[in-house]
Amino acid sequence: MTTPASPKTATDNGAPVKAKGLEGVTALDSGISFIDGQAGTLIYRGYTIEDLARNASFEEVAYLLWHGDLPKQSQLDELNAQFRAARTVHPDIIDHLRHHTPKDAVPMAALRTALSMLALYDEEAEDMSPEANARKAVRLTAKLPTLLAAFDRIRKGKEPVAPKQEGSTAFDFLYMLNGEEPGPAAEEIMDAALVLHAEHGLNASTFAARVIGATLSDMYSAVVGAMGALKGPLHGGANIEVMGMLLDIDATSADTKTYIEQKLADKEKIMGIGHRVYKTLDPRAVILRGMLEGLSDEKGERKWLEMSDTIRQTVKDAKGLEANVDFYSASVYYLLGIERDLYTPIFAMSRMTGWTAHLLEQWEDNRLIRPRAGYNGPRNKTVGPIAER
Amino acid sequence: MTTPASPKTATDNGAPVKAKGLEGVTALDSGISFIDGQAGTLIYRGYTIEDLARNASFEEVAYLLWHGDLPKQSQLDELNAQFRAARTVHPDIIDHLRHHTPKDAVPMAALRTALSMLALYDEEAEDMSPEANARKAVRLTAKLPTLLAAFDRIRKGKEPVAPKQEGSTAFDFLYMLNGEEPGPAAEEIMDAALVLHAEHGLNASTFAARVIGATLSDMYSAVVGAMGALKGPLHGGANIEVMGMLLDIDATSADTKTYIEQKLADKEKIMGIGHRVYKTLDPRAVILRGMLEGLSDEKGERKWLEMSDTIRQTVKDAKGLEANVDFYSASVYYLLGIERDLYTPIFAMSRMTGWTAHLLEQWEDNRLIRPRAGYNGPRNKTVGPIAER
Repeated sequence: MTTPASPKTATDNGAPVKAKGLEGVTALDSGISFIDGQAGTLIYRGYTIEDLARNASFEEVAYLLWHGDLPKQSQLDELNAQFRAARTVHPDIIDHLRHHTPKDAVPMAALRTALSMLALYDEEAEDMSPEANARKAVRLTAKLPTLLAAFDRIRKGKEPVAPKQEGSTAFDFLYMLNGEEPGPAAEEIMDAALVLHAEHGLNASTFAARVIGATLSDMYSAVVGAMGALKGPLHGGANIEVMGMLLDIDATSADTKTYIEQKLADKEKIMGIGHRVYKTLDPRAVILRGMLEGLSDEKGERKWLEMSDTIRQTVKDAKGLEANVDFYSASVYYLLGIERDLYTPIFAMSRMTGWTAHLLEQWEDNRLIRPRAGYNGPRNKTVGPIAER
Repeated sequence: MTTPASPKTATDNGAPVKAKGLEGVTALDSGISFIDGQAGTLIYRGYTIEDLARNASFEEVAYLLWHGDLPKQSQLDELNAQFRAARTVHPDIIDHLRHHTPKDAVPMAALRTALSMLALYDEEAEDMSPEANARKAVRLTAKLPTLLAAFDRIRKGKEPVAPKQEGSTAFDFLYMLNGEEPGPAAEEIMDAALVLHAEHGLNASTFAARVIGATLSDMYSAVVGAMGALKGPLHGGANIEVMGMLLDIDATSADTKTYIEQKLADKEKIMGIGHRVYKTLDPRAVILRGMLEGLSDEKGERKWLEMSDTIRQTVKDAKGLEANVDFYSASVYYLLGIERDLYTPIFAMSRMTGWTAHLLEQWEDNRLIRPRAGYNGPRNKTVGPIAER
């Protein structure tokens, strides 16, 4: 009835389909991005990631993901004006970060909370009209960098810096984080990193957002859930662990190849290597490696690049696995002077555009996402008196 | 290669499996609950829901879901002691509810935020050992009723009531909510409602929790995402809408049958009727209807019961669809004097046990949950100069 070339549906022959981790199962159709894991290509709405990283800003990419194509100049100007206007956050939320967020809070947990709190101050939070949801996508993308920068400054005992409300997202984020305007090189690299991380199909956080959104819950609920998923070390948390590994190798003056071979012998997972979808090199890793090379030369510090290349080659030789996006982003952010535990929140700043684009798409033709579990537990038990258990 | 009787795997013949909304797809195996949608039966760990509702307390059911079987007396005593000790919440969080939660906040949004905030005050929040996660499951289940009661009192301008830290979850919740001890009948019905809502396979919120947890993110992240999913009107939000419908019929003095037939003619969805899994009567609806009957007689107010029965019969005759758990819980909570917008948070208080049981199970043999999307967007586009778009 089915041939190897034609997709099966779950009910083709009436039998349930079993797929642990849903690997190989197509849960929905989407026009937002396409990943060819065999060829190692990624496109957003028809444009290759290489083309976008080189020729489009993060704001243009946000527009592309939400609206289906790149903006004209007037549309981009309007979006930039909306972003800049929306960067300020309600003082109660800054107050919450100041007084009700322990200084040693895990950044992703603190931001998950602050993001959830934003909803309480958004009069449109419960408005599920497409127009209101499109406006919320802009506001969420605009405000997360402000929350992150404020959180980081407050925990360091510094005053939060208000957004300048001019320039790009990358510019204003680095300005709010550091209290001084970034140079063009730093802004450009941050902007490209935001473009690279913006969207990636049904990754676990985007999928979580759609599962939540498909109950017709609101956009805040969905992106707060996505933040929680991105926090996991098997997802967005990986680049933190990559940098931890690099710093460990550096601190112990270990030979990189020997260190990795030992980890492999101990059956430890090497973070930032291998990917559920890519069976070859992640195209974003290639672009990030190029950026890392330029940045390393500019900073006169090539050791992280060299260490990374050695790790990548060692794992490839031993296991045939290739680097993914997290692998080189770790060193890029490190050389930009960004605290290690902010890498995942920066990923979230970018992926907010993909999450919200997927939610807008989900709600265009909504359907509850509810698989089944196979039952492997006991049957036919009866509740007896507690004294006899 | 496959027969109608044997489950297919996604890779049996190399073809991708396509299943919109994942209907009919088995995403994982679980020993926690089993739903026979054709027969209309539900079991938790081998015990029927009817047996548990009649013969076990919510605390016994929590133990059952987490540990696989009902507790002995000493185990139950220990769990009750843990629950009671954990019911207090950090004063900063009460302070947050008092000063940083607008009085008109949607309860599920306020509680999603407060639950996320709990993590910042839990030293074990990031500890992924099974022991720490089991302790967090108890704490989360113990603290959510306290948060909910405090939220409700504060928004009404009343002082929060500290937990009595004695008696059952149902008792202490009603005590904190109303500021006076509940009678035995109210406590018993609340306890049974908590038992009935505790667990239900891979519903959207539990599935969201597992998707998030499968990235090895922490328990708070996962249950905060689950709260967001339960908030949706297609999931836990349904009982609020059921009561809205009943109140609307009552306020307009409409004939119930005519009112529903008009809604059906207008192709409007009747909330609380029909279920993705049950093709017959939801067994929980049967139990709740029995509870509603007793409560209606006790209160001398049978109109909600009679209206509900008429709606149920009308939709059954017209569409062949049966009532689900949300249908009768609405009237039960209404007769207990609980505010309508607290129905979903009460559902969450109960389902917290199911969510956390699923997370403990997920982490026993973890695997990332990541389906694919079929791409239906454009290809081969190139970024042109913005002036030419």
